[in-house]
Amino acid sequence: MYKSSISSFMFSTDHVLLPRMVVARLSCTLKNQGKRIGHCTKVPRNVNMEKLQHGYLFPEIERHELKHLKKYPHANVIDLGIGDTTQPLPTMVTSSMVDFVRGLSTAKGYKGYGPEQGEKALRKAIADAFYRDLGIKSSEVFVSDGAQCDITRLQLLMGPNLKIAVQDPSFPAYIDSSVIIGQAGKFVDKAGKYKNIEYMTCGPQTDFFPDLSTTSRTDLIFFCSPNNPTGHAATRKQLKQLVNFAKRNGSIIIFDSAYSAYITDDSPRSIFEIPGAREVAIEVSSFSKFAGFTGVRLGWTVVPEELLYSNGFPVVHDFNRIMCTCFNGASNIAQAGGLACLSPEGFRAMQSLVDHYMENASILLDALTSLGLTVYGGKNAPYVWVHFPGSKSWDVFAEILEKTHIITVPGSGFGPGAEEYIRISAFGQRDSTIEASQRLKHLLYQ
Amino acid sequence: MYKSSISSFMFSTDHVLLPRMVVARLSCTLKNQGKRIGHCTKVPRNVNMEKLQHGYLFPEIERHELKHLKKYPHANVIDLGIGDTTQPLPTMVTSSMVDFVRGLSTAKGYKGYGPEQGEKALRKAIADAFYRDLGIKSSEVFVSDGAQCDITRLQLLMGPNLKIAVQDPSFPAYIDSSVIIGQAGKFVDKAGKYKNIEYMTCGPQTDFFPDLSTTSRTDLIFFCSPNNPTGHAATRKQLKQLVNFAKRNGSIIIFDSAYSAYITDDSPRSIFEIPGAREVAIEVSSFSKFAGFTGVRLGWTVVPEELLYSNGFPVVHDFNRIMCTCFNGASNIAQAGGLACLSPEGFRAMQSLVDHYMENASILLDALTSLGLTVYGGKNAPYVWVHFPGSKSWDVFAEILEKTHIITVPGSGFGPGAEEYIRISAFGQRDSTIEASQRLKHLLYQ
Repeated sequence: MYKSSISSFMFSTDHVLLPRMVVARLSCTLKNQGKRIGHCTKVPRNVNMEKLQHGYLFPEIERHELKHLKKYPHANVIDLGIGDTTQPLPTMVTSSMVDFVRGLSTAKGYKGYGPEQGEKALRKAIADAFYRDLGIKSSEVFVSDGAQCDITRLQLLMGPNLKIAVQDPSFPAYIDSSVIIGQAGKFVDKAGKYKNIEYMTCGPQTDFFPDLSTTSRTDLIFFCSPNNPTGHAATRKQLKQLVNFAKRNGSIIIFDSAYSAYITDDSPRSIFEIPGAREVAIEVSSFSKFAGFTGVRLGWTVVPEELLYSNGFPVVHDFNRIMCTCFNGASNIAQAGGLACLSPEGFRAMQSLVDHYMENASILLDALTSLGLTVYGGKNAPYVWVHFPGSKSWDVFAEILEKTHIITVPGSGFGPGAEEYIRISAFGQRDSTIEASQRLKHLLYQ
Repeated sequence: MYKSSISSFMFSTDHVLLPRMVVARLSCTLKNQGKRIGHCTKVPRNVNMEKLQHGYLFPEIERHELKHLKKYPHANVIDLGIGDTTQPLPTMVTSSMVDFVRGLSTAKGYKGYGPEQGEKALRKAIADAFYRDLGIKSSEVFVSDGAQCDITRLQLLMGPNLKIAVQDPSFPAYIDSSVIIGQAGKFVDKAGKYKNIEYMTCGPQTDFFPDLSTTSRTDLIFFCSPNNPTGHAATRKQLKQLVNFAKRNGSIIIFDSAYSAYITDDSPRSIFEIPGAREVAIEVSSFSKFAGFTGVRLGWTVVPEELLYSNGFPVVHDFNRIMCTCFNGASNIAQAGGLACLSPEGFRAMQSLVDHYMENASILLDALTSLGLTVYGGKNAPYVWVHFPGSKSWDVFAEILEKTHIITVPGSGFGPGAEEYIRISAFGQRDSTIEASQRLKHLLYQ
């Protein structure tokens, strides 16, 4: 126990605070060359935390970037890794926030705690803007500080005794939060999978949709569409199959629609477009990619009243309790901004942002396709998903970084089924995107 | 199972979405007078959620307020219940946020994702402002969206297999988050306590400090000073005892200093003023009460490097992982505001806010003391804690509300040891506080 802990401590790539050192353990006190560096409590490390593999993907990539910058301090590094928005916010959105903030300095405009579930007007605006005609009520919309945080709160809601399914590949927060809450079981190195998690392969051979005839029943099914990282938006037919599968199995779908604004064809933008979904699905979504609020922080989750646990108790009641106990509302300034985004003028401004990023996606798509590479995504999502048959994704990542100074994301960070892929983000600046396309052409044409 | 769930469903005071109804269960479909109201999945309700008692305290009180307003629609209700700030923010703070927000509309000022741990400058400013000479490094400070949210993240960090101790009375989020994560065990109705939680009585008979000679060892000790609700700031001597107790037992103290700005005497404002605390304590704190950021949302947690699990692994590494995986950074606008609060000018402005609320506390304290009541708090904290010997606190709460239209908080909401108390907040408007004092005098003098 001691040895393994020290080795993971020494080699931890998480938050490297302490230098590598020879650790001498004296009773319960850890020393390094005579200097006291800490004292062991008798509190055991959480076994779930011990099961987590490596650092969380994106901070991990950032560390690679920093290392690269040390090696090439003058390199013009282009970051098309983490899906981070780069376009300024429309002034109509910032003006609304400015007005709100100014009000906070006045007796009339000052606001303290808001409702934990979000401001009424915003809940209503979200229901109207994204779920018109789908029968979602304001009271079923819970405003939050972002989809990633809601995913953890949903895991808290559901507890450790459930089994989950995830798309392979998918956004790593589903699996990592599942490990932290204690659902995942052991990590099996050889397979690159957790024992208790059902990995639903979603590759090009099945149109990026799982083969449900071979998928085991789980309590929760995390499903992201448009998918991060593959960029595939599930078709209506596929989502109908998914809802039926969940209904047959008595499962709950946790549908992540964070990228729905990027859908350009008639693929559903919400799971609630599918008849019957209100009885089997929760939807998590976000202003991050839709409105460039990655740093402002705003998201929401929809829990329909008809969704019941096996004992008949409504899930929405427990989720409300989680929001009241474990969360204290999204920043009221961010909420004021969110409300502005959902006005007719705001919505048009958001569409221009989305269009801009989708033009970036086209630029990347064209460049890579012209090289004869097999490229997915980029049509209903701001990510392109590039196949490098026979390669290992961290190797491809490293080679691209080394030779072109471009940060991408290795596919294997999203699941064992994506080993031969890398994800390239369309959220960069336009000129960087063009420059990156040229560098990639140069590298890959050779 | 079915019966009990439906009865708790029907009588749930949480988020009352559905009318009371006669529920007919047909196979797995719940109907009300022929109308389909939902369908049971096969997902069991989280046993931990089932163990929670009633709704979370403050939404519960809000429901009482709404009921009262229905009964007396023209009543001038004064809310001295939830500790919600009411004073406008100083313009120097809002100006900084306005500048930041305006910047978000420009190519130069736009910011996407920030570091999950908070902006470097803010982490440094917090370390400098609150921990000068206490040896806390910026890298040990994690910026968040508030103390209540950090408490849940700390429970996630620690996991379900630990035992916790709490002050009785104390802020209900410690216990509720413990129940949700699965540490608490069964609720024993008669005692009003969870079986696995150690309740440390902190009443006036022991100067609001636990009798450590009779306190069992636990892994975590939640300790809030100045205490919410009693308003007692633990003395240096008391905190030394607490740190020694934790060290002896190999426990970790989770010290909540959200009200430290209200300390007027020389009681420690941080647990890290106590020698040795770096090896046994985590500190959670907040801009909510210090800066009136209850709605803006900003807090922080300090995890010292020297704090190690029993296997020698540093707690800070795992907490960093939790922040990266389950959280995505506090709103960058709130962080810009927080930074402004910590400038010398900002700090002075904060002190005026604090002084203002403490004058309210004096007004309440004087009024209640003049009636011969035994009143605690109000000297190092913005809460007064009033003793009504022989009464039940919800009854006192109800009587005060009915007869004076003043919202307070019943002591029993903070723990079984506070049955005869109510908490009154000094965060109200000045004129409301004066008016409330007069109404209370009138009621209680009779």
